[in-house]
Amino acid sequence: MSGHVLALSGGVGGAKLAAGLADVLEPGRLTVAVNTGDDFEHLGLTICPDIDSVLYTMAGLNDRQRGWGMTNESWHMMEQLRALGEEDWFNLGDRDLATHIARTWRLRAGGTLSEVTAHLARSLGIAQQIVPMSDDPVRTQVLTDNGWTDFQRWFVGEQCGPTVSDIRFSGTPGAAMSSGFSQALAREDLAAIVLCPSNPFLSVDPVLAVDGVRDTLMQRTVPCIAVSPLIGGRALKGPLSKLLSERDLQRGNLDIAAHYGALVDHIVIDRGDGDDAPALREAGHAVTLAETLMRSAADQERLARDVLAAVGVEF
Amino acid sequence: MSGHVLALSGGVGGAKLAAGLADVLEPGRLTVAVNTGDDFEHLGLTICPDIDSVLYTMAGLNDRQRGWGMTNESWHMMEQLRALGEEDWFNLGDRDLATHIARTWRLRAGGTLSEVTAHLARSLGIAQQIVPMSDDPVRTQVLTDNGWTDFQRWFVGEQCGPTVSDIRFSGTPGAAMSSGFSQALAREDLAAIVLCPSNPFLSVDPVLAVDGVRDTLMQRTVPCIAVSPLIGGRALKGPLSKLLSERDLQRGNLDIAAHYGALVDHIVIDRGDGDDAPALREAGHAVTLAETLMRSAADQERLARDVLAAVGVEF
Repeated sequence: MSGHVLALSGGVGGAKLAAGLADVLEPGRLTVAVNTGDDFEHLGLTICPDIDSVLYTMAGLNDRQRGWGMTNESWHMMEQLRALGEEDWFNLGDRDLATHIARTWRLRAGGTLSEVTAHLARSLGIAQQIVPMSDDPVRTQVLTDNGWTDFQRWFVGEQCGPTVSDIRFSGTPGAAMSSGFSQALAREDLAAIVLCPSNPFLSVDPVLAVDGVRDTLMQRTVPCIAVSPLIGGRALKGPLSKLLSERDLQRGNLDIAAHYGALVDHIVIDRGDGDDAPALREAGHAVTLAETLMRSAADQERLARDVLAAVGVEF
Repeated sequence: MSGHVLALSGGVGGAKLAAGLADVLEPGRLTVAVNTGDDFEHLGLTICPDIDSVLYTMAGLNDRQRGWGMTNESWHMMEQLRALGEEDWFNLGDRDLATHIARTWRLRAGGTLSEVTAHLARSLGIAQQIVPMSDDPVRTQVLTDNGWTDFQRWFVGEQCGPTVSDIRFSGTPGAAMSSGFSQALAREDLAAIVLCPSNPFLSVDPVLAVDGVRDTLMQRTVPCIAVSPLIGGRALKGPLSKLLSERDLQRGNLDIAAHYGALVDHIVIDRGDGDDAPALREAGHAVTLAETLMRSAADQERLARDVLAAVGVEF
């Protein structure tokens, strides 16, 4: 089966699989709908961390060592900002700043986030459709002993320190799907929906919380395949492992599959976690084992092929 | 006579003399009122070129080779901005950007330009008072064959190419002196007013165009001394020489002195332009010859001493 693929992505891991899918599929066959729950306003700039990760990774400009931001980055603005005594808890690279300045400027001039994202993607030479999950503001917030805290403040400012007892997506319900997202979901030639290996609770759930997304996915007539972000039962980076243990979710892939439930037909887990497969299958999921660690563009492409093959999408 | 000194300054040359005065006078004895007619909004950032020149020069962070901006500067944001296809006619250094981001953010949070400028000055370790001429927007515009053009667009974007037939300061009359400026003018211990060696037509005239400034200066009871920006009858840099020739002002210092007229008691000209002295004296100005070229902090300080000595201000 050929047809269109819709990938739902958060930041780093999701962005890598999205880039792999982009390498495998012709440009017209891929839409990446990106989490905007991590977006925030900082020093007057509108920063969209997951969209930027997807943009930079699909453009081949991501820094693989650091794991976020742009390659060949420098930090001179940040040094001077610190010298001026301004807030410095969120690192802004000099090259990365161009994205934030261009985006903020274009949004303020009246562009929608969809329009601005499409413009940035084209400017970076990306031929595929990258769309925000919504043009309405959605803000992921975590509940800690300090009360409800914006995601970036907790994630970067507090380095995931305070224990999270709840998560909410401020702005939902009420946030509408971006037109690019809803159009991709409604395509007659839609062949598969891929939940990229992003944090299910913090990166995929906000996408699912957008008005109509969960219902539309439940009524889908095409396979929905999730790629687990866990390797050896643990998250590679970010707050997922901590969240899983704090929320008493110690069963790794089984908890992830249970969290997605009937939204997902098929789950891709790391080859090293094959022991999870029988229980996942028993719970009703088709299971594919693959190398899910993506250290290179070749890794990304290989995993993309495995994912597409698992749901019978030609490439 | 001891007492307070009020310096009126534009960008580069003015900033250097302001820095020299700061080196010579105790901190509480100097107020620098800075032209804001060159200020503009660019890519959503509020940029104040003359205030920045004064800040950087008084903090010893100015780039002497380039003649503007910060020392030890890099241009990575700019390179990436260009790669994104955004407007690139105005160069924004990475370190310099921190100033624009902090200023824009603080203005948007409700600070006045006076408050934000004072904060930036303190952050950069500057003990003297640096005040904008006004907290109200004034925009210098030049009339060319293309119509009225904002100063920076003509100065940087068009590299002073189109001939200027007229100059206006949009927002005047109607712009009030900043409180720091009017307070300095009203000080009982005011000992002298210094017009720094900035472009009389484009950098000093906007300051004089602010409501009440010209009248207050005319009624002054203290000396007002101007330092000519010309050396060998020509401006060192910027559009002044071109403007003088386009406006048929070929008499160098004589035209500058005639332009200031009774506002100025005393004029400092370069030692090499001593031939102008008799005619200037005949026109009613006291004249001091000095080395007006400022290549170093020592040059700045030496000229500051000569200026203060010329009007009998102790230091």
